Amino acid sequence: MAISTEDVLKLRQRTGLGMMDCKRALEEAAGDAEKAIEILRKKGLATAQKKATRTAAEGRIHSYIHHNGRVGVLVEVNCETDFVAKNEQFQTFLNDVCLHVCAASPIAVRREQVPQTIVERERRIAREQAAGKPEKVLEKIVEGKLAKWFADNVLLEQPFVKDPDRTVGDLVTDLIARTGENIVIQRFARFEVGEESD
Amino acid sequence: MAISTEDVLKLRQRTGLGMMDCKRALEEAAGDAEKAIEILRKKGLATAQKKATRTAAEGRIHSYIHHNGRVGVLVEVNCETDFVAKNEQFQTFLNDVCLHVCAASPIAVRREQVPQTIVERERRIAREQAAGKPEKVLEKIVEGKLAKWFADNVLLEQPFVKDPDRTVGDLVTDLIARTGENIVIQRFARFEVGEESD
Repeated sequence: MAISTEDVLKLRQRTGLGMMDCKRALEEAAGDAEKAIEILRKKGLATAQKKATRTAAEGRIHSYIHHNGRVGVLVEVNCETDFVAKNEQFQTFLNDVCLHVCAASPIAVRREQVPQTIVERERRIAREQAAGKPEKVLEKIVEGKLAKWFADNVLLEQPFVKDPDRTVGDLVTDLIARTGENIVIQRFARFEVGEESD
Repeated sequence: MAISTEDVLKLRQRTGLGMMDCKRALEEAAGDAEKAIEILRKKGLATAQKKATRTAAEGRIHSYIHHNGRVGVLVEVNCETDFVAKNEQFQTFLNDVCLHVCAASPIAVRREQVPQTIVERERRIAREQAAGKPEKVLEKIVEGKLAKWFADNVLLEQPFVKDPDRTVGDLVTDLIARTGENIVIQRFARFEVGEESD
């Protein structure tokens, strides 16, 4: 099937990926742009997993202050080169992460960073809620409740506030595919006036 | 001695204090503006100490990103009313604190917040440096070295980067005197690309 250059360019604009990748995906998808994006996502994911071991020592610090001046966010996002740190997609990503953290108040960037005392408290609560269930399914229910709690509270697992069908982790994966570099949300701080200081 | 209204207004502009306070200080200083400021500072200090027990639950979150995008700061400064949080002196103060934290990299807002392990490490270093001194003076030397270390590393004790003759704590005291409210630098975060995450 012949794919028009116009379609390739459109897809390139939507995904930020290379011309040849877009052309091949459109061919594979028989010209269906949505299907092509799906195909590229899967490839992007593959790329992301390969990239995730590379060092990300460049990057940017970005901030967002809510219009009332009573909530503020600071984030560090790393990439591999200053060239990528300067690009527009990276800047948009910085903004999106700041906005998201402001609205969704995550506890930590990833699961392993949630303090063990909090995980234990949540596990205890889940056990109490599941009390009385047969022993065989009890642990599964508890694990399910915990997984739900992580999705509510851990940045990379939270549904992105501007597009709840994707997690913040999905955004990272997409940016890795688009830039061809490993991207890491290193840390964030979220201050709100009058809340307890840590 | 007669003090002109013009002198009173000038002093008011420089200090942000009330007309009558400025007039009295100028009378007491026989018209010498510098001496009057000195007198007002001493009074301001007295006011500050009285105010310091009141609750400061209002305030603002403020940020500063260094022009290269590789260093960023987030601070929370509290006051007693939203009215003061909005005023220009408070906003200038927010900017100054952010700039200062960016340049001077303090470890904590106040002494008591420096982790005990770090204080012990510094005390050990100071002891080693003072080794061999007579027992009588040794503890004094160690305390002196520690005090110097706190002045280098604790925000409120650091010399203000834009005016090293005053500490950041002095700026707080001044703002308390000018606004008539208790002012508290509650917390800060300072991120630099590529440094170890906490």
